Amino acid sequence: MDSKICRIGIIGAGRIGKLHAQNLKNHLPQFKLVGIADPQIDTSWAQQLAIPLVTKQVEDLLFHQDIDALLIASPSDQHLVQIAAASESGKAIFCEKPIGLNEADIKAVLATVKNNRTLLQLGFNRRFDPSFAHLQNEVARGAIGSSQILKITSRDPACPSSAYCATSGGMFMDMSIHDFDMAAFIMQSEVVEVYASGAVLINPDFAALNDVDTAIIQLRFANGALGVIDNSRQAVYGYDQRIEVFGSKGMLLADNQLQHSVSLHIQSVTTAANPEYFFLERYQQAYIAELKAFHSAWQSNSASPVSGEAGLKALQIAQAANESLAKKMPVSLL
Amino acid sequence: MDSKICRIGIIGAGRIGKLHAQNLKNHLPQFKLVGIADPQIDTSWAQQLAIPLVTKQVEDLLFHQDIDALLIASPSDQHLVQIAAASESGKAIFCEKPIGLNEADIKAVLATVKNNRTLLQLGFNRRFDPSFAHLQNEVARGAIGSSQILKITSRDPACPSSAYCATSGGMFMDMSIHDFDMAAFIMQSEVVEVYASGAVLINPDFAALNDVDTAIIQLRFANGALGVIDNSRQAVYGYDQRIEVFGSKGMLLADNQLQHSVSLHIQSVTTAANPEYFFLERYQQAYIAELKAFHSAWQSNSASPVSGEAGLKALQIAQAANESLAKKMPVSLL
Amino acid sequence: MDSKICRIGIIGAGRIGKLHAQNLKNHLPQFKLVGIADPQIDTSWAQQLAIPLVTKQVEDLLFHQDIDALLIASPSDQHLVQIAAASESGKAIFCEKPIGLNEADIKAVLATVKNNRTLLQLGFNRRFDPSFAHLQNEVARGAIGSSQILKITSRDPACPSSAYCATSGGMFMDMSIHDFDMAAFIMQSEVVEVYASGAVLINPDFAALNDVDTAIIQLRFANGALGVIDNSRQAVYGYDQRIEVFGSKGMLLADNQLQHSVSLHIQSVTTAANPEYFFLERYQQAYIAELKAFHSAWQSNSASPVSGEAGLKALQIAQAANESLAKKMPVSLL
Amino acid sequence: MDSKICRIGIIGAGRIGKLHAQNLKNHLPQFKLVGIADPQIDTSWAQQLAIPLVTKQVEDLLFHQDIDALLIASPSDQHLVQIAAASESGKAIFCEKPIGLNEADIKAVLATVKNNRTLLQLGFNRRFDPSFAHLQNEVARGAIGSSQILKITSRDPACPSSAYCATSGGMFMDMSIHDFDMAAFIMQSEVVEVYASGAVLINPDFAALNDVDTAIIQLRFANGALGVIDNSRQAVYGYDQRIEVFGSKGMLLADNQLQHSVSLHIQSVTTAANPEYFFLERYQQAYIAELKAFHSAWQSNSASPVSGEAGLKALQIAQAANESLAKKMPVSLL
Repeated sequence: MDSKICRIGIIGAGRIGKLHAQNLKNHLPQFKLVGIADPQIDTSWAQQLAIPLVTKQVEDLLFHQDIDALLIASPSDQHLVQIAAASESGKAIFCEKPIGLNEADIKAVLATVKNNRTLLQLGFNRRFDPSFAHLQNEVARGAIGSSQILKITSRDPACPSSAYCATSGGMFMDMSIHDFDMAAFIMQSEVVEVYASGAVLINPDFAALNDVDTAIIQLRFANGALGVIDNSRQAVYGYDQRIEVFGSKGMLLADNQLQHSVSLHIQSVTTAANPEYFFLERYQQAYIAELKAFHSAWQSNSASPVSGEAGLKALQIAQAANESLAKKMPVSLL
Repeated sequence: MDSKICRIGIIGAGRIGKLHAQNLKNHLPQFKLVGIADPQIDTSWAQQLAIPLVTKQVEDLLFHQDIDALLIASPSDQHLVQIAAASESGKAIFCEKPIGLNEADIKAVLATVKNNRTLLQLGFNRRFDPSFAHLQNEVARGAIGSSQILKITSRDPACPSSAYCATSGGMFMDMSIHDFDMAAFIMQSEVVEVYASGAVLINPDFAALNDVDTAIIQLRFANGALGVIDNSRQAVYGYDQRIEVFGSKGMLLADNQLQHSVSLHIQSVTTAANPEYFFLERYQQAYIAELKAFHSAWQSNSASPVSGEAGLKALQIAQAANESLAKKMPVSLL
Repeated sequence: MDSKICRIGIIGAGRIGKLHAQNLKNHLPQFKLVGIADPQIDTSWAQQLAIPLVTKQVEDLLFHQDIDALLIASPSDQHLVQIAAASESGKAIFCEKPIGLNEADIKAVLATVKNNRTLLQLGFNRRFDPSFAHLQNEVARGAIGSSQILKITSRDPACPSSAYCATSGGMFMDMSIHDFDMAAFIMQSEVVEVYASGAVLINPDFAALNDVDTAIIQLRFANGALGVIDNSRQAVYGYDQRIEVFGSKGMLLADNQLQHSVSLHIQSVTTAANPEYFFLERYQQAYIAELKAFHSAWQSNSASPVSGEAGLKALQIAQAANESLAKKMPVSLL
Repeated sequence: MDSKICRIGIIGAGRIGKLHAQNLKNHLPQFKLVGIADPQIDTSWAQQLAIPLVTKQVEDLLFHQDIDALLIASPSDQHLVQIAAASESGKAIFCEKPIGLNEADIKAVLATVKNNRTLLQLGFNRRFDPSFAHLQNEVARGAIGSSQILKITSRDPACPSSAYCATSGGMFMDMSIHDFDMAAFIMQSEVVEVYASGAVLINPDFAALNDVDTAIIQLRFANGALGVIDNSRQAVYGYDQRIEVFGSKGMLLADNQLQHSVSLHIQSVTTAANPEYFFLERYQQAYIAELKAFHSAWQSNSASPVSGEAGLKALQIAQAANESLAKKMPVSLL
């Protein structure tokens, strides 16, 4: 197929913005990275990447004439405004999660997006992990019949600082939200009920923040299946990202990716590699694949592979999980 | 060590009674199988095993002079009476689960057992599976620091008949109870809260029985850790019995035992063996090991490795799970 | 099927004779163990097993009227004479390897066996290991097309004493001979050429014995396929017994059996269990299965599953390997 | 550390030249790709990569003033001349294997390289595969004590055309040479004896070419250890690249990398992914890592991580293997 070049700008040049910039330059010739905007832009880094337009003014990109798409990687509290502006400005939008932290605002901006027929894709990168994508595809083709139990293990390798957590929206909003999206993605069925239990077992400071660092969250899906997510802020052996789906005709397991394939067999024991350390390593390919999918939707004018509604849904599940945790009861999403 | 022969009788010669008889004869020279009693005893089978006393009268064994211990493998509703009689008769007792189906009755018989200083061991065989025992030992020695999350996957290969289920006491009493015991055994901490959700996804008849065939059960332990069990009555790929414990210093995983160690690598795919089919295959060694432990406790006059209280506790968790399922709320065990 | 009881006697009550006696008593009701003979018989052990006839005179069994079969587990240098006598005496014979250490003698006794139409099965137990048997079956059914490369890894966990090795006939005769038999068994094609290289890397004493402790042996099969065996007298991580067959349509791998299925994932590393320690553990099931097969051949009057000719062939390969090692050249078996 | 930019030109823009060009542009900012030369240069491809100098004249790069290093990816028969010219021209050289096909010529050019103190690194990329590099490092640090047995499995997924093979120098020169280099690299000891056996089991045309498509090659190392390589031109399940080292204190295994980490467990069987298809996928990271190492040696003026002598040695082993195959005898390299 003949690839049409998509001219793209990036808003936000923090860790994730830089990652996308590098992927666009190195792995995604179907894009032309036109510019990057960040009030604290690291100019020498941007020059090294030879990005034509480097600016501290977000507006320079939001209203740029010769840009087809914007990748929003700014702080979360700016997403709503920037999505709205970019939509009005006629750009396609790739936005890191979350859209916003408040349902009403999100619904409002999604209405704008819909009115403008804007392509909006959210950065739920895990959907594009090759193993998880393969698993989802297997579920969808009926390899295990009808799905009955979903299990997601999702544990970060190291606990973020209390300071970070204080503004993160809590573990369900900040961390589990990826798992909520994966749950809906893999089961192709809406979550209708949530029951969450949590504990502070790692960092006692989290108690004061009314947050947890360890959780088990049960889900019930519209199709009748059950699900469970277990989360921890600190898995000392590395980033633990596994998914299991059990169905009427079998089971699918997506195991961790290991750092290497060498095992050592000695007198007392056999040893092997740990999982890839964290998301930059584990989801390296996923970050590229999600932008390929974005380009493809843009060029073919087709539906977003990760719609704004998916972001809203994940947020609603996170809210229900918070409510469940507080009330010690299951919470319905219907 | 010098092994003292324990003279034992078996009450009940159904599938599990026969299994124990064969293990006693073939693998456990520290026991002498003196007799077996069953109203419907299969005499030709008993003769083949050369069991000296074969009787239809349970009393012939319960009050036999030259018997040190009784192995109770009769129908569940006879356990209470037989435990009481055997205790009064001065025998050590190995009893298949459950002790009874009613807390008050169980407590009464346990009081008798205590008064008589009777050795009573329950047949929670999974504790003696070599892999699970190794895992528990690793947890106990602190290999993963303090335990934070327990995950048990326990799925039977094929659904029992509706007729069986109608009298089984329901999935939690009949099937999950093994997992409840394992949870307490591995965590070495009491379950203080249960939240259960369930569904009928396999056999629609179960709905009429007010039973479920698929369940996810959350646990909270006295030490603050969280746990989750997922159960299914029908895993078409075989008996799925896995345990995972996550802690402050790492994770332990006990995977399934496979039918063989051969993999086939062909053009489209790599294939490997499924798990052992069901409990007779998977827990073959555990059935022998639990009786070795019983003998050892008997000879050294030490505490039961699986006490009557453990059976009571597992039953209480199952009751709480039933209550939680009915009320759609977490239930406290405190 | 209706099983006819085979009355059997054991000649030789060393480690392997005792193992067979226990298996016959505990796992093989289709046999009746009539007696055991050994000049140094351990009488108390025999009594514990309740073997009716316990004798120091081999002849008491060789010419016993009421015995259908003899299991020969005596020292290797007595096999020839005992096979001949048992054959003339009309017994079916199960004999541990080797038949003898000299081709002419072996051929002579096999002629006697043939004349008398004696069932003679050799104790190449590995053929009956469930995983290896499954692999062989897969090869035979064409799962990997035509076989092209066979690889056998066979390493003992600990080096025998120099004293043992001095009379063992050398590593190829004593240890590799099992692998030579497996090679022919799995490939269902005769070995036509051998090239062996060896080294003394573990125990320097072996050099004085003109023996090796480490070897790689190449094979060429009549069907054109190639093979390679690697042997070591000392694998500190346990008994390493793996087989790989590569063919036109794929590959089969039989991996080691591990001591348990638990893995531990900690900060620096993931650890797992080592292989079963040695042949008693690894081939436990194979020792039972080979006698089941013997009974089956005896009852149905069918051909031996491991014929005397297989033993002769394995010996010839071992001789060729010795010759190759000495001459530093490939040696033809045609 | 402060990275000095190395200005590099590429000679040869076939599959491997293009791969290196892309890696230099996308993953190796420590290089500046100045130009590429190929008589049949694909100009539109080169423009897309924005390579400043694109030429059909190799000399334009060989004698370019502002180039520090040359990457030689031209047809094999041009390597010698280009290495010599680049050396005389004062460039550092990264050259794909082989240096040449004739010992005398290679020695001559290596003398030139030595005289000019030219940095010359050969493209034995497998040394830089993360798993193989880890394994080698483990061997070197003594993780398995003294090495005793090396096993390399190296099988291509699909047979090249007879036409390709006719000019390839034969399987040992074309394919096994990588394994010969790995053998020396991992054991850190010279190969002193080779015995090769081969067969035509895949493509009958190879017989007419006096070539083989299936081979087992035994090695003996200066340190006394033994080794064995098995090669096939056609592994239908994918690129099979495994290494095993057995030593006095244990064993190291480098297994294949799989296409994904998902397994499917259904009624009859468990299935998993096959290995990565071929070298572009499997050694993707290795191609980048070898150039990083080249840059590092260039900047620090240190010894080549893969010297010309390593290339010569691998060629000598391949020649010995050819001789062994023809003579049906082991061949000494001393």
